This record gives sequence, C-alpha cells and structure tokens, in this order.
Amino acid sequence: METEVHRVAPPPRRSTFQKLNTRLKETFFPDDPLRQFKDRPWKTKVVLGAQYIFPVLKWGPNYSLKLLKSDIVSGLTIASLAIPQGISYAKLANLPPIVGLYSSFVPPLIYAVLGSSRDLAVGPVSIASLIMGSMLRQQVSPVQDPILFLQLAFSSTFFAGLFQSSLGFLRLGFIIDFLSKATLIGFMGGAAIIVSLQQLKSLLGIQHFTKKMGIVPVLTSVFHNTHESIRKPKLFWVSAGAPLVSVILSTLLVFAFKAQNHGITVIGKLQEGLNPPSWNMLHFHGSYLGLERIAVGRTFAALKNYEVDGNKEMIAFGVMNIVGSSTSCYVTTGAFSRSAVNHNAGCKTAVSNIIMAVTVMVTLLFLMPLFQYTPNVVLGAIIVTAVIGLIDIPAACEIWKIDKFDFIVMLCAFLGVLFVSVQNGLAIAVGISIFKILIQITRPKTVMLGNIPGTDIYRDLHHYKEAVSVPGFLILSIEAPINFANSTYLKERITRWVEEYESDDEYAKKQSGLKFVILDLSAVSAIDTNGVSFFKDLRMALEKRNLELVLVNPLGEVMEKLQRADDAREFARPDCLFLTVGEAVAFLVSTIKKQSSNCL
Amino acid sequence: METEVHRVAPPPRRSTFQKLNTRLKETFFPDDPLRQFKDRPWKTKVVLGAQYIFPVLKWGPNYSLKLLKSDIVSGLTIASLAIPQGISYAKLANLPPIVGLYSSFVPPLIYAVLGSSRDLAVGPVSIASLIMGSMLRQQVSPVQDPILFLQLAFSSTFFAGLFQSSLGFLRLGFIIDFLSKATLIGFMGGAAIIVSLQQLKSLLGIQHFTKKMGIVPVLTSVFHNTHESIRKPKLFWVSAGAPLVSVILSTLLVFAFKAQNHGITVIGKLQEGLNPPSWNMLHFHGSYLGLERIAVGRTFAALKNYEVDGNKEMIAFGVMNIVGSSTSCYVTTGAFSRSAVNHNAGCKTAVSNIIMAVTVMVTLLFLMPLFQYTPNVVLGAIIVTAVIGLIDIPAACEIWKIDKFDFIVMLCAFLGVLFVSVQNGLAIAVGISIFKILIQITRPKTVMLGNIPGTDIYRDLHHYKEAVSVPGFLILSIEAPINFANSTYLKERITRWVEEYESDDEYAKKQSGLKFVILDLSAVSAIDTNGVSFFKDLRMALEKRNLELVLVNPLGEVMEKLQRADDAREFARPDCLFLTVGEAVAFLVSTIKKQSSNCL
Repeated sequence: METEVHRVAPPPRRSTFQKLNTRLKETFFPDDPLRQFKDRPWKTKVVLGAQYIFPVLKWGPNYSLKLLKSDIVSGLTIASLAIPQGISYAKLANLPPIVGLYSSFVPPLIYAVLGSSRDLAVGPVSIASLIMGSMLRQQVSPVQDPILFLQLAFSSTFFAGLFQSSLGFLRLGFIIDFLSKATLIGFMGGAAIIVSLQQLKSLLGIQHFTKKMGIVPVLTSVFHNTHESIRKPKLFWVSAGAPLVSVILSTLLVFAFKAQNHGITVIGKLQEGLNPPSWNMLHFHGSYLGLERIAVGRTFAALKNYEVDGNKEMIAFGVMNIVGSSTSCYVTTGAFSRSAVNHNAGCKTAVSNIIMAVTVMVTLLFLMPLFQYTPNVVLGAIIVTAVIGLIDIPAACEIWKIDKFDFIVMLCAFLGVLFVSVQNGLAIAVGISIFKILIQITRPKTVMLGNIPGTDIYRDLHHYKEAVSVPGFLILSIEAPINFANSTYLKERITRWVEEYESDDEYAKKQSGLKFVILDLSAVSAIDTNGVSFFKDLRMALEKRNLELVLVNPLGEVMEKLQRADDAREFARPDCLFLTVGEAVAFLVSTIKKQSSNCL
Repeated sequence: METEVHRVAPPPRRSTFQKLNTRLKETFFPDDPLRQFKDRPWKTKVVLGAQYIFPVLKWGPNYSLKLLKSDIVSGLTIASLAIPQGISYAKLANLPPIVGLYSSFVPPLIYAVLGSSRDLAVGPVSIASLIMGSMLRQQVSPVQDPILFLQLAFSSTFFAGLFQSSLGFLRLGFIIDFLSKATLIGFMGGAAIIVSLQQLKSLLGIQHFTKKMGIVPVLTSVFHNTHESIRKPKLFWVSAGAPLVSVILSTLLVFAFKAQNHGITVIGKLQEGLNPPSWNMLHFHGSYLGLERIAVGRTFAALKNYEVDGNKEMIAFGVMNIVGSSTSCYVTTGAFSRSAVNHNAGCKTAVSNIIMAVTVMVTLLFLMPLFQYTPNVVLGAIIVTAVIGLIDIPAACEIWKIDKFDFIVMLCAFLGVLFVSVQNGLAIAVGISIFKILIQITRPKTVMLGNIPGTDIYRDLHHYKEAVSVPGFLILSIEAPINFANSTYLKERITRWVEEYESDDEYAKKQSGLKFVILDLSAVSAIDTNGVSFFKDLRMALEKRNLELVLVNPLGEVMEKLQRADDAREFARPDCLFLTVGEAVAFLVSTIKKQSSNCL
C-alpha cells in the first residue's frame, strides 16, 4: 500500500530586495495608508491626499446647521470641564494656572484641523501634568526659579511634540507600543493615589507640604501636618459636585465671606488676554539639562493615550505640541474622561473642539477677573475627583482572573509608582514586560504530539487526553522562531525528550525502540544562522543515536534558509521532509513495514 | 451529509502553583540535572551527587597507565603553546608577563577537578586579555600606576568568577545567551585586526605607540611612525613558526648577538617561584571604580566560550576565576585553539590539563632565567598568529549566504569594534540582535492559507502555488504569541486583510461575499490580557461587518485564558471553535448549504 505524500515545495524565488521591500512594508505600513490612492486619476489623488493630511476637508464641505447644534452642546459641555480642569492640572504640573487655560485654547484648534477622531477632546491631562511636574521638579524648583521652570516646561513640550511627530512621520509609532494594559492600569492607579495624597495639601489647607513624590514622604507629611495645622476645614465639603459648579460656588463663597483674609488661599489676579508667544522661551542648545529635556519629551511621546492610535494621530499630536510650546501651552493630548463626556453629549465632528476653544478664548479675554477669588482648595478637589476615576479595580480583578503574570506586572507598576517614583515605576513595569517576552523567546514552548485515534490529526499529548503517542516516533512541535537566544536550549531540551523516551519503561516493554524524531515546524516563523546550525547539530547528534530527524511543514523563509545552508541536500530528502505530521508518520511506518518484510 | 467534527477540549485543570512549577522547571532546568538521582537508593545518590559536583570522581577510578601516556603527550603539547601564549596574552592585557604563567598554573588544576569537558584546555585567552586591557586602561594607566592596574585586574577577575558561578548556580546562564554566532564572528574578526595592528608596535619596534583602541588612532600611529622609526627589521622573519620554537630561537639569537643592547626590547628578569597570594589585592569596597569593576566582571561572564555550555561548566569557570584572583591569576577560560590542539594530540581526560599545569610549574620554579633574553617582538608575533586565526572569512560568507540580516549584525560588530571601541562594538551588535527579536514580536508573521486541492490540508497561499483560497472564507494563521506589543498591529493588519478581500474584484465577480474569518492559532504559543482583548475587539469589529470569527486549534494556555475571560461563552461555541482548519471549513460550508436549502 502506497501512502499519498505531498511534496514540500520551496517557496517561489524572490530577490533579497523584494523580500526587504515586503518586510519594510509589513513593518512600517501595516495599514497601507496609500491604498486608497491606487489606480485613481491624479486629480482625485490630490483631493484624497489633502483630505488625508487635513481630515477637516473630508467632513467640512458636508457640515450642516444640525451638526453644528449638536457640536455646540457638546463643545460647551466639555468647555465647562476643561476650564476648571485646565487650571487645576496646570497647578498639578507646578505651572501658573493660566497656562492650563492657554493649553485648552490653541491645541484644540490645531487638532480640529489635523486630527481624525471626532470624539477626542484635547487639552491638558492629569497624568501628563503629574509626570511633567515630578520630572522637572527634580531639576529646578518651581518656587525658587519659576521662569526657568516655565522655560523647561515649554522646551519639554516642544521635544515631546518633536518626538511624536517624527515617530509618526517615520511610521515608528510601534516602538513605543510597550505599555501593556496591565502596566497602564497599575501605573494610573498608583499615580492617582499619589496625586490625591498630594492634593491633601490644598484640601486640608496644609502649608508646609512635601513636594516629593512617593507615598512615604507624602504620608509622613500629611500625618506630620494634620494634627497641627488644619485650618478652616469647614470649606472641605465643596470638594464634591461638578467642577464648574464647585468653582463658581466656592468663588462666590470666598468673595462673599472675604475668606481670602482668613487663611483660604485663592488663585489671585490672572492676566486677561490670549496666549502670549513663548518661542523665545524654548531652549534648544546650551549644556543645561539638555539630555533631561529630551528624556522628558520621550516619556510623553511614550505616554500616548492608548485609546487613540495610528501614526497619523501621532503626527497631529506632535504638531499640536510643537505649536503649543511656542504659544505658552504645556503638554496636551487626548483627555480620556473629557472625550467620553464629549461623546455622550452628542458631538458630531471636531467642531466641538473648536467650540470649546472659543469658549476658553472668551474666558481668557473677558472672564479672568472672576477667578480671582477661586480658592485653591477647589482645584485640589477637582484633581482628586478626576484622578480617582483612574483607579480601575474591576480591570485589576479581570487581569488577576485571566493572567497572573500580567497581574504581577500591574502590581509592579502600581507599587513602583507609589514607593519609588513615577518614572521608575513605569520603567520597572515596562522592563518586566519586555523581560517576559525575552523569556518566551529564550525558552520556547515545545509540545509533544500524539495521534487522535481514527484521524490523521496530531495534537498536544498533555492537552488532549484521547491523543496517543505513536510507538517508535517522537513528535515535537516547536512554538517559536529558532535563533541565537534559544538554539542551545532547544538542543538540550530535545536531547532530554529523546533520553526520557528511550529510558521510559513503557516503551521498553513494547520493544519498539525510538526510530524517528519528527519536528513539526508549522509554528517556527523564522530562523537565523544559529537556527540553521541547530538543525545541522541536532541531525548529527541524532544520527549518533541511530535516530532520523524528520522535518514537517517548514514555512517559506525557514525552508529557504535550510536549503541554502544544506550543501549535501540532507534536509530536502523526500523521506525527511513532509507536509503534514500525518503523512510523515504514514509514509515512515509503511517504509519500516516494507523493510521488515524484505528482511523475512 | 454531516461532517465529522472533533471537539476542542479545554486542557486538564492545573492549579496556578502547578503551572508555575512547570514553568520554572522548563526555564531553569531544561536538562533536568537531577534526573539521574530519581528512584535510586541513597548510597547511589551520594556517589552520583559527588560525581556530579566533582567529575574527576567519575573517570578517576578507572584511570590507567595507557590513558596517562596519551594525556602526557597532549599535556606537553598544550604546555608548549600555553607558556609562550600565556606570556604574550598577559602583555596584551598590559599585565606583567609572569601573570600569564601564573594563570596557566592554578586554573587548569581547578578545572581538572571541577570541569566536565576532557578536551578543554584552560588558561588566558586573547579576546579576554584584549578586553580586560582595553577596559581597565580607560580607568588607570598601566604605565603610571602598575600596582593599581594589577589590583583592578585581580578584582575584575574575582567579579567575573563571582558572576559566572552565581549565574551557573542560579541556573541563569541563559540570560547571557545573547551573543549570536554572527555577533561573535564579527566581534572576533574586528578584535583580531585591532590586536594585530597594535602588535605592529612590537613587530616593527615602534616606541611611541598609541595605547588607544580603535582603528583610526592605531593606523595613524603606525603610518606616523613607520617612515621614521623602524629599527632592526632584520628580525621580523621570526614572527613565523611555532610559538615555542620562535621563543627559543629568538631568545638564543638575542643572547648570542647581545641584541638587547641594539634596540631589541626583551622581557627581562622574571622572578622564579610559584604564584604569590593576591587576595590582599582584591578591592571589594571603596568608591573607586566600584561599578566599573562589576561591569568588567559581567562582560567576561558574558564572553563565555560558545563551544562549552551548561550552567555546570559556568560554576567550574567561576570557581576557577575566584580562586585564580587570589593567587595572582587574571581572567581564564577555555581556550578554543589550544583545546583543538589538545583534542588532536589525543588527550583522554582532564589529566592533560594537570600535565600542562605541572609543566608550567616546572617552568616557574626553574626555567624563568631562560626567558630573560626573549625579545618582546616574538610575543607580538605569537599574538598576531593566534588572533589572525580568529578572522573567519568562510563563516562570514556562509552567514551572507544564509541570512542577510545576520550578516548586517556581524558587520556592525566588526565595524563597531574597529571604529568605535571593543565594548561598544559588542554592545551595538547585541542591541541589534535583541531589536530584531523585538521586531519579530511586534510584527508577527501572519499568513493567508489556502486549500491544497483534494486534501483537507491548508497551507500558505504565497508559498504553495497549488493552494487555492476558499470562497467566502478568509483563513489566516498567526505565527507568534499575541501580547501587548503586537495586539494593535494584528487588529489593524487583519482589518486590512478583510478590506482587501472584500474590495478584490475577483471575489466580487464570483459573488461570494466574505462570511467567515478563520484564525488558525496553532502557532500562537501564548497570550496575555491584551491578547484576550484583541480577540474580543476583533470579534466585535467583524460582527459589525456581518462576519463571523472562527478560531482553530488554540493551545492549552490560550484556550484557558480565552475561556476565563469569556463570560458569554462566545469563544467556546461549537460553531466558532474547531480542531483543524479542514473541519472548520467543511462544517461551515455544510451549514451554509443547509441554510440556503431551508430558505428555498
């Protein structure tokens, strides 16, 4: 009986250049942004191109009064959030409150023209403000040297924008994809707690408060201060309620009772007028803190909102921050909570961002005196209510349920931020995540396959209890690319499989000695020169034990490299290379039978 | 007609602890070193344990006169290499020549007891000497402060030993497996050229030679010096020939012609006697260069000989260097070239190392005066002949043939060592290698499958020209673990496959709209929480397009995590989960046919 066997063909020949071309395309253009331009007349191409760069040209021409109505409602809604939050977050970053308003005016206008999301509300966000404050404070004191601090903040914003736009333009956004969900949840939870504790300063009216991050100094400071210096806790209740209402009410209260003279600190006089230019405050050269600023910029580029994606969006954010840095704005990005409100309030297009910016403009031009009596305590309350929402307990439980290792990563980010520092906590979590990937590569999963009776299907023996091993065959499936980082391990491990098989009493009883080692390579996506040596070494080692190495279903690239290294054509021998495990076993069993019947 | 369909079973339940246990075993004990102890009486266990720690106990009892004869021949042979090379390599590391002899005496004795390879000849090697010299020279001048330089050398040796033995003991040897074959070949080629150029000093008798690494300063120095200061080039011819013969002949020549008085520098008087203790020269504390020494130690631990492997060997090397550092030895390891000679000379056991050590001892005790007139020029020649052999052109050609990317890595290591520095060249190459692995993870290979007519086999459409796609089905195979680093990419990429399929004219003509997206998960070895979200998001995105997501053959771990996250039991629905692509297509096609016949 002849078994039908399908030939394993080498892949069609392609030149190195063609391969490189494909590889580059897959790496940098997975979404193939130019697809829509194919086979179009050049006029359409120009229109499509302009629409691609300025999405406003896509929805602008069809804009109607009805859409405007919805956008005005949502725009005003997010403005009522953005104004108090802008002031608060600027304080969180140790910047003058008015910078928060400036940052809610120019960037939304730019995003409305360049951005492709209609829901996204842009402006200052709590996490970025927190990180900027904590990173810059390590270098310069915002109290002793406020001008230098402001210069550094604008310069960092510029570099953040430069990084974002160049990564987006070079289609390299993916190199900062190393923040996993678990890392982000742990990081944001930790940051939220740190920020909330810090705001106890404003909330409890404590004067001498530590500016250091980390839970230990913050808590020490709180406990050290509470029993001696809590003043006027009567006004604590205002921390509840919607931000704008709180601001209005508290401002009215302060104004009515002249509380500013009784220990309540207020924002004070803010200058009316739109964003002053700040390009003269950007530091591009000079030895002072050069590297630090670039590091800060890179950190922000990495902290992109994980709800918004694509290199296109990164360019929009980058341009937004570059322009922002020269118009007195600090780092802005898509604000998660405000975007959700924007969506729920029924926004239709990016016009809602424009409405918000116009509202902020009106505020800047005419309403600044109203903030004079706004107490700082209400800003602290706004920050706390905003960041408390970042602590995502259900998500943490879900992670615990699904993946214990991810839970550890999350915990590391959380505890790192709490007990070490904001940046180091993040770095630790990212480091652990990458370490896990490298472990997966250096210790690739190898599975012993068995036959599911009555079929030619071969599956993991430990997973499918009905699968049975085939006497005389050791069938292994390798589940990772074979390269320098794991070839030694794989050789060691396979040798151990073989030795265990041969010393197993069960097989000794059946008197069916091991004859073939079949490697199913379906899941080996790539090999390098060390991988090629691995196959050669393994075949030699197995030959010494009178075992034959049989390869099954090598993918195109693997097949090609093996062929090129294989001068003796050992790997391409038809009795050593099969398309499926089933065919390999059937063919080899029939060969053995033929041989033994010839011997009789 | 009912199609036979095999159920995809969840894997047998195991507790988190059991899973952790298996994972740790696979990561740290792939060779299962304790396997031989299983089910043995305790007496045997003690004997086996002692033999495991001291391999000498294994071969010692059966040692015979016949074996000794072979070992004496090979031992004397490698001693004749080790003595001149020891002196030369010590000079390469800017250490006194006698330290090279010390290092060829104690470490081989220790390896003979602890080591498990019988061929390996241990002692100083050129690459390690080069790196030690170049790294320490950046901190301290060996000319201006020779005592401190020596102290640093011994301390580095101690830390190298400490790293090696602790990595070996903790079974963490694999974390330094990141030197690929390509990196090593490039690195050694570059280092060989640098060393050879440096030795032009001795060979050409140039006096004012740069001590800096890097080809530019070295070449500048050579060209600057050659036309003015080549003295006595008559003796240049002695650089050829076997090291010992060269040493003897050149020493005799110098002695006979009193050439030391005519511009030929000689080694000079060397002190007779065995290794003096040097533990008092180890620096464990103090701020001076603390971190640097640890970095040097780690570099050596990473530069283990790639022919010898296993955590057990690392412990032996580590102990060897720790003991060596307190007996005036510098870094030693398995010498590749001498080991080959040892093997060819017919060594049988580690006794050949003992013979070599005894020969070195005799030399140290009685023959030191003979080296007084050995010219430095011959040491340079010995170094050059040894390192020139490290330039492996055929291997470089083979790498070019097999893998162009590995060739680039090799070139980076080579050029980095030549034009930047020894350590940075190595760091660049390792960095690129790891970057390649990360790219493979962030951009996992995804392959579109088609049916091979007449079978139920599905293979890559681009690889097998006979494979045909099944109308109405998009069958994709993902070839990597799905995690935070690639889930966004995969979703983007799969969306593009679907859009391309739907906009393809060929399919539009056939009027068979896309109905199912089948993901073959056979090669997805693991997922994390981002991976789970990827499946949920993808199913929702596909449902919006009226497409059904069908999963095929998820491995145990993937299956388990999907189940845990899947409250609605959507992924375990029998019409969405199949064991093979063939069964999935057959079942779904028959379902469609049934539905359409019901409609009629």
